[in-house]
Amino acid sequence: MDNKAPVTVIGLGLMGQALAGAFLKAGHPTIVWNRTAAKADQLVAEGARLASAVGDALQASSLTIVCVTDYQAMRELLGASDIDLNGTMLLNLTSGNSAQAREAARWTEQRGARYLDGAIMAIPPAIGTAEAVILHSGPQSDFEAHKSTLDALGTVTYLGADHGLASLYDGAGLTMMWSVLNAWLHGTAMLRTAGVDAVTYAPFARQIAAGVAEWLPGYAEQIDSGSFPAEVSALEGDARTMAHLIEESEALGVNAELPKLIKAMADRSIAAGHGAEQYPVLIEEFGKP
Amino acid sequence: MDNKAPVTVIGLGLMGQALAGAFLKAGHPTIVWNRTAAKADQLVAEGARLASAVGDALQASSLTIVCVTDYQAMRELLGASDIDLNGTMLLNLTSGNSAQAREAARWTEQRGARYLDGAIMAIPPAIGTAEAVILHSGPQSDFEAHKSTLDALGTVTYLGADHGLASLYDGAGLTMMWSVLNAWLHGTAMLRTAGVDAVTYAPFARQIAAGVAEWLPGYAEQIDSGSFPAEVSALEGDARTMAHLIEESEALGVNAELPKLIKAMADRSIAAGHGAEQYPVLIEEFGKP
Ligand SMILES: NC(=O)c1ccc[n+]([C@@H]2O[C@H](COP(=O)([O-])OP(=O)(O)OC[C@H]3O[C@@H](n4cnc5c(N)ncnc54)[C@H](OP(=O)(O)O)[C@@H]3O)[C@@H](O)[C@H]2O)c1
Ligand SMILES: NC(=O)c1ccc[n+]([C@@H]2O[C@H](COP(=O)([O-])OP(=O)(O)OC[C@H]3O[C@@H](n4cnc5c(N)ncnc54)[C@H](OP(=O)(O)O)[C@@H]3O)[C@@H](O)[C@H]2O)c1
Repeated sequence: MDNKAPVTVIGLGLMGQALAGAFLKAGHPTIVWNRTAAKADQLVAEGARLASAVGDALQASSLTIVCVTDYQAMRELLGASDIDLNGTMLLNLTSGNSAQAREAARWTEQRGARYLDGAIMAIPPAIGTAEAVILHSGPQSDFEAHKSTLDALGTVTYLGADHGLASLYDGAGLTMMWSVLNAWLHGTAMLRTAGVDAVTYAPFARQIAAGVAEWLPGYAEQIDSGSFPAEVSALEGDARTMAHLIEESEALGVNAELPKLIKAMADRSIAAGHGAEQYPVLIEEFGKP
Repeated sequence: MDNKAPVTVIGLGLMGQALAGAFLKAGHPTIVWNRTAAKADQLVAEGARLASAVGDALQASSLTIVCVTDYQAMRELLGASDIDLNGTMLLNLTSGNSAQAREAARWTEQRGARYLDGAIMAIPPAIGTAEAVILHSGPQSDFEAHKSTLDALGTVTYLGADHGLASLYDGAGLTMMWSVLNAWLHGTAMLRTAGVDAVTYAPFARQIAAGVAEWLPGYAEQIDSGSFPAEVSALEGDARTMAHLIEESEALGVNAELPKLIKAMADRSIAAGHGAEQYPVLIEEFGKP
């Protein structure tokens, strides 16, 4: 064991155990606490120290990671009358929304803590590998002070000072994940009507998704400039093709809700006068309740 | 001009002109015809020969490409009483659905033609570059006999003997394209509520889309085997996260229809008893009308 910084992990569910295990593996002195103490057994066998109480766990390291079910659980845990947060550095990796993250920052900072919020875009077995993307938001200097410790968890990213950002990027990323999966499932269902295996179609879907992903930075410039010249195609022509896609899906006996939602959004934008503009003008529809 | 094969292009709209232009550039003797003859002027100036009639155009080359508004226009064009299709090789790059493609194959083959159907996944200015993906379906030997000519148009791909495949892959690819764009727009709208520019968010969206695309071939194996063990996560847990995403979108004042559709599909699969299985089990819902 060299001079790696000690780190505390509170909450040893499936994810907390993976986090503590990754710190141990990277050689960090690791202090753990869990409401149900038995969940620490395996980690203790691997070299972790089980703290006697939450307060003890908080004092044992200059960085405490909390990973419990939800923000309510975190509040119950850290809000007990005998807990002193003054001078502690908290990183909350519990999943929640941006309002909860901002509120948790206010609440802990009022009690003298420094607070970072995070979101884990990975499953427990991926923790400790580069595939595990972990998003962080809050004061940049606090993130940087502990980045070398956090690197043990995977690909750690800093997003900005607003504590809500980790949750917002997480939600945006999940929307992208499910959207790519659903588009692929829709295409797979269409191709199966012609006897094409999922394995035969998948490389094509992969290529299209990766190709379209490359357009996003350029399209983003149209959004930031608020100007949507139809360089590639106009929304009105797109909507005609969407109508054909709905007809084709229905004729094949495949669920048509996805192409119908795609067309409904485009139709609203056309009705708002944007038929001669390019696809990213739809941001105005997505930005409305 | 070396010994490149002559090729005929019928239909000189925006796309037909781009196709003929790419053949000329690649050094193919190019014969053209259009209902409105004036649209051939520029191509003739570049070296194309304007055929005097459709029949003349068909006889001039061993490959005739048709690219007109729709299948109805193709039928009017080739169905005239003075037209003899016997012995011709047709490649129809007109957009349509898989039923129209199969019907056009029957109709032309009955008249003694050989027939390939195709779909152009590109805009006219991209024709002649590797970015232009052009899908082909029909008899493989006919595709291969003319591949070296078709290579002048872009990245040409052969999908299989079923004439409907080009249209089906095209529709599946468009669904992927619009789904990636919509997920990106949804995320951009979420992040904008926190003052994050579209340009700042776009690289993150690109990375997620490209990363998820890599999973598809593996997930496809679950579909073909019909077995969906929850290796990564179970649908029931996914649905809880989807509910939070809907709440977050609504709290931010962002359109929530996309996450609502995502959750509705998952909920149906859970109701059908698949809550403990993995995401690709949703293929059963996508495959239903
Ligand atoms: N697992 C994943 O794939 C994954 C992926 C990304 C993010 N996450 C997020 O990570 C967090 C933890 O997930 P998990 O998979 O580890 O969940 P889990 O296995 O269900 O564990 C929940 C943990 O929270 C503790 N807890 C709950 N209520 C508590 C309370 N009132 N006081 C003290 N401790 C309490 C539990 O303690 P007991 O052991 O005493 O019950 C347990 O340690 C969640 O926010 C989850 O969304 C998980
Ligand atoms: N443009 C694109 O970005 C794009 C991309 C992918 C696929 N496509 C597909 O390519 C095809 C052609 O598109 P385009 O952009 O070239 O369309 P366009 O500019 O509107 O041209 C339509 C062509 O069809 C001809 N035509 C229409 N009805 C006819 C009839 N009854 N008899 C004879 N000729 C007829 C027109 O002849 P006249 O000149 O005499 O009117 C013209 O040559 C469409 O199926 C389209 O979906 C286009």
